[in-house]
Amino acid sequence: MKPRIITLITDFGTADTYAGVMKGVILSGSPMAAVVDITHEIAPQDVRGACFALLTAYSWFPKRTIHLVVVDPGVGSERRPLIIETKEYFFVGPDNGVFTPVLAGPGVKAVYEITDSASFLPAVSATFHGRDIFAPVAARLSKGVRPSQIGAPISDYVLLDWPQPAEVKAGAAEGEILHIDRFGNLITNFSRKYVRELTGGGDFYLRCDGRSIKQMVPAYAYAKPGQLCYVFGSSDFLEIAVANGSAAALLKARRGDPVMLLKK
Amino acid sequence: MKPRIITLITDFGTADTYAGVMKGVILSGSPMAAVVDITHEIAPQDVRGACFALLTAYSWFPKRTIHLVVVDPGVGSERRPLIIETKEYFFVGPDNGVFTPVLAGPGVKAVYEITDSASFLPAVSATFHGRDIFAPVAARLSKGVRPSQIGAPISDYVLLDWPQPAEVKAGAAEGEILHIDRFGNLITNFSRKYVRELTGGGDFYLRCDGRSIKQMVPAYAYAKPGQLCYVFGSSDFLEIAVANGSAAALLKARRGDPVMLLKK
Amino acid sequence: MKPRIITLITDFGTADTYAGVMKGVILSGSPMAAVVDITHEIAPQDVRGACFALLTAYSWFPKRTIHLVVVDPGVGSERRPLIIETKEYFFVGPDNGVFTPVLAGPGVKAVYEITDSASFLPAVSATFHGRDIFAPVAARLSKGVRPSQIGAPISDYVLLDWPQPAEVKAGAAEGEILHIDRFGNLITNFSRKYVRELTGGGDFYLRCDGRSIKQMVPAYAYAKPGQLCYVFGSSDFLEIAVANGSAAALLKARRGDPVMLLKK
Repeated sequence: MKPRIITLITDFGTADTYAGVMKGVILSGSPMAAVVDITHEIAPQDVRGACFALLTAYSWFPKRTIHLVVVDPGVGSERRPLIIETKEYFFVGPDNGVFTPVLAGPGVKAVYEITDSASFLPAVSATFHGRDIFAPVAARLSKGVRPSQIGAPISDYVLLDWPQPAEVKAGAAEGEILHIDRFGNLITNFSRKYVRELTGGGDFYLRCDGRSIKQMVPAYAYAKPGQLCYVFGSSDFLEIAVANGSAAALLKARRGDPVMLLKK
Repeated sequence: MKPRIITLITDFGTADTYAGVMKGVILSGSPMAAVVDITHEIAPQDVRGACFALLTAYSWFPKRTIHLVVVDPGVGSERRPLIIETKEYFFVGPDNGVFTPVLAGPGVKAVYEITDSASFLPAVSATFHGRDIFAPVAARLSKGVRPSQIGAPISDYVLLDWPQPAEVKAGAAEGEILHIDRFGNLITNFSRKYVRELTGGGDFYLRCDGRSIKQMVPAYAYAKPGQLCYVFGSSDFLEIAVANGSAAALLKARRGDPVMLLKK
Repeated sequence: MKPRIITLITDFGTADTYAGVMKGVILSGSPMAAVVDITHEIAPQDVRGACFALLTAYSWFPKRTIHLVVVDPGVGSERRPLIIETKEYFFVGPDNGVFTPVLAGPGVKAVYEITDSASFLPAVSATFHGRDIFAPVAARLSKGVRPSQIGAPISDYVLLDWPQPAEVKAGAAEGEILHIDRFGNLITNFSRKYVRELTGGGDFYLRCDGRSIKQMVPAYAYAKPGQLCYVFGSSDFLEIAVANGSAAALLKARRGDPVMLLKK
């Protein structure tokens, strides 16, 4: 069974034609591919933002989906182009750490530096490898070409330090805001598993921006409008929210801001 | 013939991965479904905005299209998940009034509360039923499963009061601005039919923000640049426009602002 | 072989349902068409912006793609609806100059005024020909109907003056900024071919906003962060860039601003 779905995560936005051009190249190489936009709104050159998007999205797609990520400030330099093959998926994009959540996780079968220039467009620009290298390579994969026919295995790929919460004293851990979503929810890096391990399943509360946030709710609708609360969100991270409002606005929060998790 | 097209109307935006994740779940459940974005730019939790989007869009799709609407401030609470079957379409989403334009219209065959948890994802979060309930249910419908296999008929679904124009004295009706579009056009709730009934086909003019708007044009290009005018728009509602400009900016208008329709 | 792909370039944005409705109409007429968004973020009524989008995007799609462009301030007036057939593509949209980059290029086989009202939706509004004329015509083309069955050949179509660089004294040419992209890169109208002709392959530099920009780089990553440089971009035009920054912000640049190209 051939992979058919190619997803896109880029920082190209949708006002320019860069994302559209990549779709044209994919469909030129693989007319029956199904191209699915995950997001093109990663902030320009925000590799960590793309990591988070990838982390929250990739595993919800059918097996054999090809995930194409083009956030590529090093385009045209020595940074290598990659294919990653995991038990379930393929990933294509630059070797700049953007695949850290995948490479740090289970199921990685092999990582390839893309080397087969016959798989590229005939002319390769120095500024748009999304079009000239990554899109045609994804198209080839979607037609059943094996990664080993396009690249050579490597093991010294780039990994970013991904922010992990740390217990700073007994029963108190410092984490941070990984992402702020459209609703102003603050998604922290406290996973359900981490919280359980730290608290032993007992009660806890959060501190952020000098405020204690003590109300845990099963879902946003259980908080009073305007009230700060926290919830295990859809990616199983604790998130700070305001029902019918924006926690980001209330707390003037920014990505990377610290959040404390404290046992009661 | 199976339905194949699944449309999406959400308030998720496109910077987060929520909409992309829903597509992944749909395609996991129904690989040949065609997912079509109508809009993800409904303002956060703006159920009425989603109503208007649905009203203007759904009937232009092929018969048997499945329209998935996820603007869901009550996610995780007691609000029920719904399937609506009309003569021509299916609708899937929360029972919070977002389907008012459909439910108040003709052709409704049945409304079901979704009850078959075997149709959901194995783990259902409290904050993202778009992913865990609505997307997999839409996928099942697209494979030909009948709504009656997934839900139980109900008749006490939520309907919003939808703003109707009212004749406040002879030949004078008060309506309101239902929507402001990207061009700054003010779409009112005066339908072509209502105007004909009120005016008997005679001349009329509008008042908004203290101004009389007397020039009716067949299309925007017939007004002088910068001039206020009105036109029957593409959804057959009267809209106030400024050729080559924005009526919203000129009149500092907001959704819900009153507009008077007056016989000449 | 039938064309299957229909691309969209519009100024409708994605918050309103206009683009979604066009997709519904296309899929109603041609259920197996593959609709691909190039962009809906052309500024309202910005015909030249749409020209640039079209110029950079259309040739990357498979042969026989139908490119639908709806930036149409003259909708409902006398402006004609067009089909253009080139050696490789079809184009559908208004006769307002938006197809200038195509019509001025090679490979044009014929230009048709769309005349066959049986190809339109049954009711044609005066404000949304994207939905009522262009989408159904594109759907028909995608099913193999010939342009000559839908329109009548014309030769007096609208062409815009497209800004060309001009040598203002020996070895010095004045051009302009054609487009500013999401990264703040300033794309000029100095093509690689023009630069080679002017400079005879020798060294050169740029002047913009009173500054001399002397560093040419093969790709953005070769400039120091924050440094102004220029590069031949992915569409083979010279562009002014700031590595890890925005040239547009640094130079307070706007589309149409002059740029000088000077032989060293």
